[in-house]
Amino acid sequence: MDFELTQDQHDIQRAVRELAASFGNDYWAEHDHDHRFPWEFYDAFAHGGWLGIQEASILLEEVAASGAAMNGCSAMHLTIFGINVLVKHGSEALRAEILPGVVDGSLHVCFGVTEPDAGTDTSRITTTARRDGDSYVVHGRKVWTTKAGDSQKIVLLARTSPRDDASPTDGMSLFLADVDRSAMEITPIAKMGRNAVASHEVRIDGLRVPAAARIGEEGDGFRYLLDGLNPERILLAHEALGIGRVAIEHATEYATQREVFGRPIGQNQGLAFPLAEAQTRLDAARLMARNAAWRYDNGLRCGREANMAKFLCADAGFEAADRAVQTLGGMGYAREYHVERYFREARLIRLAPISQEMVLNYVSQHVLGLPRSY
Amino acid sequence: MDFELTQDQHDIQRAVRELAASFGNDYWAEHDHDHRFPWEFYDAFAHGGWLGIQEASILLEEVAASGAAMNGCSAMHLTIFGINVLVKHGSEALRAEILPGVVDGSLHVCFGVTEPDAGTDTSRITTTARRDGDSYVVHGRKVWTTKAGDSQKIVLLARTSPRDDASPTDGMSLFLADVDRSAMEITPIAKMGRNAVASHEVRIDGLRVPAAARIGEEGDGFRYLLDGLNPERILLAHEALGIGRVAIEHATEYATQREVFGRPIGQNQGLAFPLAEAQTRLDAARLMARNAAWRYDNGLRCGREANMAKFLCADAGFEAADRAVQTLGGMGYAREYHVERYFREARLIRLAPISQEMVLNYVSQHVLGLPRSY
Amino acid sequence: MDFELTQDQHDIQRAVRELAASFGNDYWAEHDHDHRFPWEFYDAFAHGGWLGIQEASILLEEVAASGAAMNGCSAMHLTIFGINVLVKHGSEALRAEILPGVVDGSLHVCFGVTEPDAGTDTSRITTTARRDGDSYVVHGRKVWTTKAGDSQKIVLLARTSPRDDASPTDGMSLFLADVDRSAMEITPIAKMGRNAVASHEVRIDGLRVPAAARIGEEGDGFRYLLDGLNPERILLAHEALGIGRVAIEHATEYATQREVFGRPIGQNQGLAFPLAEAQTRLDAARLMARNAAWRYDNGLRCGREANMAKFLCADAGFEAADRAVQTLGGMGYAREYHVERYFREARLIRLAPISQEMVLNYVSQHVLGLPRSY
Amino acid sequence: MDFELTQDQHDIQRAVRELAASFGNDYWAEHDHDHRFPWEFYDAFAHGGWLGIQEASILLEEVAASGAAMNGCSAMHLTIFGINVLVKHGSEALRAEILPGVVDGSLHVCFGVTEPDAGTDTSRITTTARRDGDSYVVHGRKVWTTKAGDSQKIVLLARTSPRDDASPTDGMSLFLADVDRSAMEITPIAKMGRNAVASHEVRIDGLRVPAAARIGEEGDGFRYLLDGLNPERILLAHEALGIGRVAIEHATEYATQREVFGRPIGQNQGLAFPLAEAQTRLDAARLMARNAAWRYDNGLRCGREANMAKFLCADAGFEAADRAVQTLGGMGYAREYHVERYFREARLIRLAPISQEMVLNYVSQHVLGLPRSY
Repeated sequence: MDFELTQDQHDIQRAVRELAASFGNDYWAEHDHDHRFPWEFYDAFAHGGWLGIQEASILLEEVAASGAAMNGCSAMHLTIFGINVLVKHGSEALRAEILPGVVDGSLHVCFGVTEPDAGTDTSRITTTARRDGDSYVVHGRKVWTTKAGDSQKIVLLARTSPRDDASPTDGMSLFLADVDRSAMEITPIAKMGRNAVASHEVRIDGLRVPAAARIGEEGDGFRYLLDGLNPERILLAHEALGIGRVAIEHATEYATQREVFGRPIGQNQGLAFPLAEAQTRLDAARLMARNAAWRYDNGLRCGREANMAKFLCADAGFEAADRAVQTLGGMGYAREYHVERYFREARLIRLAPISQEMVLNYVSQHVLGLPRSY
Repeated sequence: MDFELTQDQHDIQRAVRELAASFGNDYWAEHDHDHRFPWEFYDAFAHGGWLGIQEASILLEEVAASGAAMNGCSAMHLTIFGINVLVKHGSEALRAEILPGVVDGSLHVCFGVTEPDAGTDTSRITTTARRDGDSYVVHGRKVWTTKAGDSQKIVLLARTSPRDDASPTDGMSLFLADVDRSAMEITPIAKMGRNAVASHEVRIDGLRVPAAARIGEEGDGFRYLLDGLNPERILLAHEALGIGRVAIEHATEYATQREVFGRPIGQNQGLAFPLAEAQTRLDAARLMARNAAWRYDNGLRCGREANMAKFLCADAGFEAADRAVQTLGGMGYAREYHVERYFREARLIRLAPISQEMVLNYVSQHVLGLPRSY
Repeated sequence: MDFELTQDQHDIQRAVRELAASFGNDYWAEHDHDHRFPWEFYDAFAHGGWLGIQEASILLEEVAASGAAMNGCSAMHLTIFGINVLVKHGSEALRAEILPGVVDGSLHVCFGVTEPDAGTDTSRITTTARRDGDSYVVHGRKVWTTKAGDSQKIVLLARTSPRDDASPTDGMSLFLADVDRSAMEITPIAKMGRNAVASHEVRIDGLRVPAAARIGEEGDGFRYLLDGLNPERILLAHEALGIGRVAIEHATEYATQREVFGRPIGQNQGLAFPLAEAQTRLDAARLMARNAAWRYDNGLRCGREANMAKFLCADAGFEAADRAVQTLGGMGYAREYHVERYFREARLIRLAPISQEMVLNYVSQHVLGLPRSY
Repeated sequence: MDFELTQDQHDIQRAVRELAASFGNDYWAEHDHDHRFPWEFYDAFAHGGWLGIQEASILLEEVAASGAAMNGCSAMHLTIFGINVLVKHGSEALRAEILPGVVDGSLHVCFGVTEPDAGTDTSRITTTARRDGDSYVVHGRKVWTTKAGDSQKIVLLARTSPRDDASPTDGMSLFLADVDRSAMEITPIAKMGRNAVASHEVRIDGLRVPAAARIGEEGDGFRYLLDGLNPERILLAHEALGIGRVAIEHATEYATQREVFGRPIGQNQGLAFPLAEAQTRLDAARLMARNAAWRYDNGLRCGREANMAKFLCADAGFEAADRAVQTLGGMGYAREYHVERYFREARLIRLAPISQEMVLNYVSQHVLGLPRSY
């Protein structure tokens, strides 16, 4: 047993911390307010070349904790875990075409999986890709496609065979399509937070995709995506930790300096105890998240740990941000003090990439062995 | 004992509900997004002439529950409880000059009490009003002055004698000053929500106020304000109730219509139970809030009830809004569905007009009789 | 609207408080420890003759708050709400035979409704009463029959027709049977608390009950019981309030007197705030419970209010008791200080007479209109 | 990084699990009910000879999880971490006299540290040891001295110099005294749970202790005890985990088998989700507890981790037990199903060996750097 980071991991942590610190809260507050993608930040980190999920986790926690929160992380994490499906299952030609641009930051890829009427039940997606000679013709509608407006490529999940109740997750295929506005309507979704990085609704009407741009076998798309679910949960868990950390830092600093009734407000247990509990829960959640990352990188099963990590980190990160708002009082509600931004962003991770409720369904069924409830 | 509204109160409730419904969620979402004061709404309600705190409570709950939330209420509640101090303690001349315009909606008055360095400890305000012949000269700085940018008049609290530790709340006086930009710098505070109604920082440098514009006696200003604290808490409590109510309505409707895995998501106890608990806590909080209003209107002591009502309603309203976001999943994060707006606004009432923590201090000390902790 | 007790209700409250105070914590601790029925207490209260549910509620809250907790209340509440079904639906002869003894305290009646395999789903009871000439012959098994070992009579629910899925709650009948040990085996159930008043498992094998001892019509037994569900919830809700109240009283007194690190521990917000919140939630829960009682006594629908009252009071009462234990530290775990007894008893009301979860099902379905989940 | 147990640790875990399973729930229920010390169990484990805190932790979690809960653990953990102070600081002669009997289970040692008027503030103890020739004479009063009635020896903390406000924790000394009833009055404290192992009040009046029985230097007793605080917290944390684990096992089994309304109750998210969340929090708390044990055994600072582990495990263990009671409904309140016993025992660990509130004080001050609040 050994709970410490390795020296390499410590080095990554320090390097990221320093690089991220050169941006900082005002940079992120402005980009969030102006709904502007953080290109400078993105480019600064493009050549990172991080190896495993453990390293990526450390990276994203530090980015979030720099005050970048999800705005900073979302700009990057798609590249880290999203492109994985292409690396693992794409043809050699496809990989050769795409990966260099992804690695040097010049090519942006977004992911079109979620649909408005399917929600959590991905087997219900209705976007179709009909084979037509050497290509497929795609019709359908995606939502929450992050960075669609800033990407040249989109990884698309579409039905290539009709849904069969006996094996509802079969018959879907993955494509690496061009973001072609002549056949796609891309509309940003106004939302509560993480506004430097837009998410979009994408309506696709007759998009033609060459068969060579299919990732892996026809009908196996859903299975390929499954590979990526645990890494996605692990990385988002670390982002929540980072937000929680920076929120507590702000709150603690404020509570130490702000005096009311002749003494620092942090001397009041009514403010201090909830912060102390938030810190304690963050620390425990981090152990679970690191445990999950370590297991993934070592080829061990990690569904239990990845799901639990996402639940615990999302919860602890939000609580920390909520308590930071409360600690700062009225100032917690003002944009100038940043914690309201952490609060809005932390709220998202209780919903995505999987809701807290679906995690509890997973644990009920697959950890406790209770009967499926839905 | 009788827990029912009177027929008159029912009539007010119905009238307000209908009038408020003619505005609606899109109106409020736009005004919030554009940071635009809801003049049409304000004018529509200007001639209300509500009698007691019970009626005003019913009014504000209905306004909030129409989807207007705090944007709608804050536009109005200053008039209702804020102007009270003038009605009770102002000279006849001052009342004659001001009240008609307030009642017909043509004159706007804002309140300059809170200061950045004093916070909850009002005895620490540093704005001073120095007597100079027939007038006072004011210097200082106020924060969170709502509607300062849209008002012609400001009720100002300022020190007219130096702070004395033995009686620290003496020596402050109230004035009804002009909003005179030649001696005031008014800056809106960027904030998380309630953006149709701006709050401002106000820097005052040499503002001259006629002695006749002083409200009541010199040195008694704080005492006059105390009268208004319980009504303010009672009214804000009802606003929180209204927000909670409309949030649950949206969530319940969504949970009934939205199908995932072949059935409405509201059939899942994991979503239904937290909504049911939120509804239950709202109903209990409403009883406390009505109890407080009834006691105030009947001249009974109501500090315990008003404080508890504010605590319970703020908590229940926020929980309802938070659960509405969670019920709508990703859509809960999208502006289009309005619940994220309720969530941002409900958050404010846990901080203002008094923080949850200060309520717990009140209950600890004045209800339980425990020693003061700060 | 009027939230105050009437003068009569105040008088009852004072009278009960004084009478109950003549017993006190040591009396209850001993009877609980020795598993001894509180006969002296029971006799002292036998001639009460309380009128409505509001008065009974006031009575039971005061009894619980005297330190008697559920031990005191359970000894009495069966008489109050349990015998109701006989008063409303029993034949004149049956009422004449039974009620005088119940009123003067000489005759004890217990209730045999719950069965081990039916649980919350009463339609699944398997105790049968087969008609045989002028009498019925009963076979079956009941659990949690309180006072069975100390009663002369038992109100029994038994199937007189087989279960029909189309109308599963029809076909059950109520009987007022003798507690006849020649045909009944009565075994106390060892349990966590409320040990002055035993609950029993009752195995019935060939008990003969005269047809004249049937309460009301054959087949309508379940419907008669329904009448009593809301009063039962309302009364138990008040018992939870009483427990919460006495727990906070003990905790507050201890926190005021106990000094550690040179000052009363109640000066620590970490202890004071949870007590203040518990007090606040108790006060709100009481309003809901009184609202429910007032509605019942005035013939208004009260399912929503009675269920919510039971949920809120059970929750607030338990939280108060839990916080009292925590406030007393190690002494909270010692029997001598009584709060551990309140804690064990308060825990019961989260389970009975209906679980918190079944209340949330009721609210989800009947208040929010969500689809039934089970 | 490596989160797995070593092979040796796995072996210990399996061995303990098997040995503990040969006792089981009925054994513990009886000993708890009869207030009888578990001698057979104690003897079976006496020759264990576990090495580090990590191994002891694994041992105690398994013992607790066998259904023995704290009754089983308290019988043993005093030996494990309590005798440590003797091993580290006792003279060679004292160690030679005592340790063999402790190791073979024939000699029982209890610990007399806590006093009724000092509570958490150990510097306030008033038991004195006055030097008189070659011995000390002790007067004073201890509480919560576990096993005092079954021990031959007691480790006593007593003041050997008067309290000095400048260094209040100096001037206390440790002694290994005989349990001599001619100078000691030993009274068991009736308590809510963990009743197989009694705790006592000990009144000492003129007990004579040879100077050779002093452990270490005069005046340094408190400092020696400090060494043991973190191990104590770590071990108790693991006991809480074990209780939580067995509680969830019972609840899950019951929820799978128990059918109401025609389906297993575990299919209801209203029951399943709280269990899933409890499991998730237990898993995270375990990582923190193992982290603390690993750090201690590796000579790293572990105050932060040990305190957090105690807080998280106590909280998660109690929540698991509470939810187990709720899952079993009425049966959760019956002794026969054991979860009420887990519930009573788990409650203790929120109070001891340090209260949750004192952990939050530790974290506030030593982790977050906030000013001391008391």
